[in-house]
Amino acid sequence: MTNLVGIVMGSDSDLPTMQAAIDVCAEFGIATEVRILSAHRTPRDMLEYGVTAHERGLRVIIAGAGGAAHLPGMLAACTALPVIGVPVQTKALSGLDSLLSIVQMPAGVPVATVAIGGGQNAGLLAVQILATSDPALMTRMSTYKEALAATSRAKNERLEQG
Amino acid sequence: MTNLVGIVMGSDSDLPTMQAAIDVCAEFGIATEVRILSAHRTPRDMLEYGVTAHERGLRVIIAGAGGAAHLPGMLAACTALPVIGVPVQTKALSGLDSLLSIVQMPAGVPVATVAIGGGQNAGLLAVQILATSDPALMTRMSTYKEALAATSRAKNERLEQG
Amino acid sequence: MTNLVGIVMGSDSDLPTMQAAIDVCAEFGIATEVRILSAHRTPRDMLEYGVTAHERGLRVIIAGAGGAAHLPGMLAACTALPVIGVPVQTKALSGLDSLLSIVQMPAGVPVATVAIGGGQNAGLLAVQILATSDPALMTRMSTYKEALAATSRAKNERLEQG
Amino acid sequence: MTNLVGIVMGSDSDLPTMQAAIDVCAEFGIATEVRILSAHRTPRDMLEYGVTAHERGLRVIIAGAGGAAHLPGMLAACTALPVIGVPVQTKALSGLDSLLSIVQMPAGVPVATVAIGGGQNAGLLAVQILATSDPALMTRMSTYKEALAATSRAKNERLEQG
Amino acid sequence: MTNLVGIVMGSDSDLPTMQAAIDVCAEFGIATEVRILSAHRTPRDMLEYGVTAHERGLRVIIAGAGGAAHLPGMLAACTALPVIGVPVQTKALSGLDSLLSIVQMPAGVPVATVAIGGGQNAGLLAVQILATSDPALMTRMSTYKEALAATSRAKNERLEQG
Amino acid sequence: MTNLVGIVMGSDSDLPTMQAAIDVCAEFGIATEVRILSAHRTPRDMLEYGVTAHERGLRVIIAGAGGAAHLPGMLAACTALPVIGVPVQTKALSGLDSLLSIVQMPAGVPVATVAIGGGQNAGLLAVQILATSDPALMTRMSTYKEALAATSRAKNERLEQG
Amino acid sequence: MTNLVGIVMGSDSDLPTMQAAIDVCAEFGIATEVRILSAHRTPRDMLEYGVTAHERGLRVIIAGAGGAAHLPGMLAACTALPVIGVPVQTKALSGLDSLLSIVQMPAGVPVATVAIGGGQNAGLLAVQILATSDPALMTRMSTYKEALAATSRAKNERLEQG
Amino acid sequence: MTNLVGIVMGSDSDLPTMQAAIDVCAEFGIATEVRILSAHRTPRDMLEYGVTAHERGLRVIIAGAGGAAHLPGMLAACTALPVIGVPVQTKALSGLDSLLSIVQMPAGVPVATVAIGGGQNAGLLAVQILATSDPALMTRMSTYKEALAATSRAKNERLEQG
Repeated sequence: MTNLVGIVMGSDSDLPTMQAAIDVCAEFGIATEVRILSAHRTPRDMLEYGVTAHERGLRVIIAGAGGAAHLPGMLAACTALPVIGVPVQTKALSGLDSLLSIVQMPAGVPVATVAIGGGQNAGLLAVQILATSDPALMTRMSTYKEALAATSRAKNERLEQG
Repeated sequence: MTNLVGIVMGSDSDLPTMQAAIDVCAEFGIATEVRILSAHRTPRDMLEYGVTAHERGLRVIIAGAGGAAHLPGMLAACTALPVIGVPVQTKALSGLDSLLSIVQMPAGVPVATVAIGGGQNAGLLAVQILATSDPALMTRMSTYKEALAATSRAKNERLEQG
Repeated sequence: MTNLVGIVMGSDSDLPTMQAAIDVCAEFGIATEVRILSAHRTPRDMLEYGVTAHERGLRVIIAGAGGAAHLPGMLAACTALPVIGVPVQTKALSGLDSLLSIVQMPAGVPVATVAIGGGQNAGLLAVQILATSDPALMTRMSTYKEALAATSRAKNERLEQG
Repeated sequence: MTNLVGIVMGSDSDLPTMQAAIDVCAEFGIATEVRILSAHRTPRDMLEYGVTAHERGLRVIIAGAGGAAHLPGMLAACTALPVIGVPVQTKALSGLDSLLSIVQMPAGVPVATVAIGGGQNAGLLAVQILATSDPALMTRMSTYKEALAATSRAKNERLEQG
Repeated sequence: MTNLVGIVMGSDSDLPTMQAAIDVCAEFGIATEVRILSAHRTPRDMLEYGVTAHERGLRVIIAGAGGAAHLPGMLAACTALPVIGVPVQTKALSGLDSLLSIVQMPAGVPVATVAIGGGQNAGLLAVQILATSDPALMTRMSTYKEALAATSRAKNERLEQG
Repeated sequence: MTNLVGIVMGSDSDLPTMQAAIDVCAEFGIATEVRILSAHRTPRDMLEYGVTAHERGLRVIIAGAGGAAHLPGMLAACTALPVIGVPVQTKALSGLDSLLSIVQMPAGVPVATVAIGGGQNAGLLAVQILATSDPALMTRMSTYKEALAATSRAKNERLEQG
Repeated sequence: MTNLVGIVMGSDSDLPTMQAAIDVCAEFGIATEVRILSAHRTPRDMLEYGVTAHERGLRVIIAGAGGAAHLPGMLAACTALPVIGVPVQTKALSGLDSLLSIVQMPAGVPVATVAIGGGQNAGLLAVQILATSDPALMTRMSTYKEALAATSRAKNERLEQG
Repeated sequence: MTNLVGIVMGSDSDLPTMQAAIDVCAEFGIATEVRILSAHRTPRDMLEYGVTAHERGLRVIIAGAGGAAHLPGMLAACTALPVIGVPVQTKALSGLDSLLSIVQMPAGVPVATVAIGGGQNAGLLAVQILATSDPALMTRMSTYKEALAATSRAKNERLEQG
């Protein structure tokens, strides 16, 4: 099975945030490859990863980083694939630095940014992107959203029944 | 030609920001439908738009809004399609309110957020998403990125030659 | 006894914040209905709740949400009743995201926003609104405020007597 | 006709923001009294205004102020009536100071805060509050919201017809 | 001994912050009166306190409050005495709300604002103000600053000998 | 006549902000000395100015600066006199940088901070400080505040008379 | 003459900010090479520039960028030379995004960050770095600082003479 | 061995942050002198330290401080040596105050600012500066960066082997 989603993080300290993205892809049966690639410590590895991503069969990249979070934007610079950015929460500025470093990309090179700490949503967005050309996956995504609704309604019922 | 990208904005005052998204899609030959739909003034229209988006053939939605910018997130709530959110710059808070209202979505319902005022990048991201299943479009996107590089190199040459 | 105040929250994780609103209404003898309704997970339920709120006898809605907090504004979009918004404190941005998502509503659709975590004040504001047409309730609200003053004065006396 | 809404501002420089509140009330046929009362320059006048507001027949107070914006909160301290606060945009901090000074009220003394510069919404919120006990006014508010929707739909049609 | 400095706080929860101001005044032999006076819960008491402060012999007022922190500015509105404001740290916004609510006063009514949580510095500033007309106190303040320097130098020596 | 208030600024570009402080002192008949002294360009001059301020007869120092605004805090480090800090509005960050650089002083060395751009209030605070030991000046300050109130009331009357 | 300082910017729109850095180097007789290199549009060119910088004789790199400003940090990732980062002021967020994207680098890869828009200071810092091993340059830098002081003193004299 | 790097902090409470800078210099065999010097408590000592730094043989100064963090900028005012500033994380504002107080220096007096809490990077930057004239040190710095890359690659391998 070809890996369709590359899940990349700057450091193993980002893994708790990114695990949710890995889990979502697994839940939807999407094969992923997970990498630690640092824009700042291994820039050439990171660049090569981005440049070769498409030819290796990847369709979407999810990248998480914190602080001066350059990994998502640099991967987006190196590939024509859609890149999803996950701002990792930081100690001093709570991830506001990560968010602005990821989302405020210049014209020409977008990063699809999710919420601070939003690993799960990054995974779901990757699935949604793949589902645009995979009706079965789209159906599963619709089912997933119905399950979300059902869970919410169940919580409401428990609350109403006190 | 089926419209593949829905470009939605809360008000006609958002059009200057969103025109760049429309233009990018046109440049890549992607048929779009452009709508003014207000989460706050026409919530039912907005909901119906989202709910029927997939069956009408759309593959991606781009939504722009400012201030308490609920349109992208509400459309994402109504469809399994990927939704791209464009925070529109605002008078008092310069779009920081728009950005946080769009990007900080709860687990389960992502919005692919681009930069404040990032209409052009929203269009490019939509193209990249469509290109994941359209090799010809992917090639055109790669060419686009090469043209970006060429323009940047030309600027550098002019600068070096003084 | 008709429910006069609808107290709605996006998730059961908002209950600790919203319980104070429930308690205040109970303290003033106002019948409430409490619901979990997610703008993002159950948008149609939320919309129907808002659209039918008035005919079901509600006079005021209190809605709490965190992050990209769309529930208060979306309910305000669906009803002519006054809607009170409670920004729930969030992990990364401490509720600044919730506050801006709730308060920065566009012209035409106000949300009466209280402080971050201000469940108690949301309840009091609902009572004040009902009291505008209920002299007995207004008297009780005046008494409540006198009790606040008395408690503050008692604290001062204990401090002065050291 | 008894004045039902008191519209108060700290300085005549706030009038451009507050005029929209005055206009909305006039549009709905609500009699208002408009005052310049400064929490900081005429604190005793302000306090007496708040203390006597209810007995003079007012049902709602709208107060606008900028910077260290104490007027809404201080009026809320002096009356059991609902007080709506309008953060006026400021030169240096764009109204973020006004917003936080108005919305972050302590438990016991709510201020119903609207958006920075939200004079129009303050007026609408006052009408909504009065409408909770005035079915005719509620009907007019519903009509107002339908007109908002119609205007939005008309803009959409113009856009679609290009 | 006449009380020269009034130390006022909005709630007993502010006492941990304000105790440092009380202690500094005691250390310099300045008689203080300490009060809990809430701008929002006992506005009339607060106003009377401010209005009578000068005639009761006070020379400086120190006021601490958090969130929509109106106490320092309202006391400044009621007296010609210098008022020192202490922004108390808050749960959600860490005192940024307190700081802006206190420092951003309009022209005509200054509040001498110290750092978030700066109770000790508020006390020192009060002593410095009194010392402008009390040479003995000025000498003691100079001695205090020399002691600060000596402590700092001692820390340096311990570090160098490390 | 001895100069009682030293008005110091980091650059002549701060003069428009500081002129209001100069004018207020003149209005109250307080002799001032006005200096350009840069903490960063002439640190030794600045230090000597602070160290000798008291012996030269000054009673209060007002210091204005923008950006990394070190002048008020450094003067406070060099003298036992009260130092009033004026955060000057800046181009990029609107004076938030100036405000935090001035107000967030460490324990032991207070700066009495006024609003961003608050030159006039700095002057008034200096007068209030001098007035703590000058009954005639205190009377004039009370008169000033009454004039503020009268002006506010006159504005209100004009507004009421439409 | 070997170029000792590389001055790099992401786009020709950054030139007004970076020109001041170029001018300072010229003023001190330091040979520079000026380049437009975009981390996002020409990532490989940028990487090669950084990797070869040292062997081509450069001793310091100055890099300016705005928004999600990745250029300084990415160059720092590619070279052992000191890299100075200049946050360029941006339209929506005034350069706060640029600042955080540049300064909040992870451990191991520093960027020497100057103020928003601080092209001149970037140039001076480069000269100071070169001067650590060039006594003549150090002397010129000391002279430069004396000239700054002299200019400041002259402004003060003009002010004192009114 | 002459001390080449001066490591200065405002208080011993900054030592946990600054220890990383000390350790990095030690790791690279750079002799340092470590001092507690407070801009606010011992301004003259601080000034003398800065003024004599060059003649005592120092080549770089690293200065850390928190809140209204004036130490780095004031040392930069007193010497022509490059000064590296470390914003220390603070209790209320998490170091945003420290960062702005250090980085937003006026034209003419740069401070090379690193991340909030970035003691380690300050040390590395000092080494990079010294390495501009010390080929052996430059080689060691390149080796250090290779080790960073190797550690990152090893983490990636462990992850891939999962």
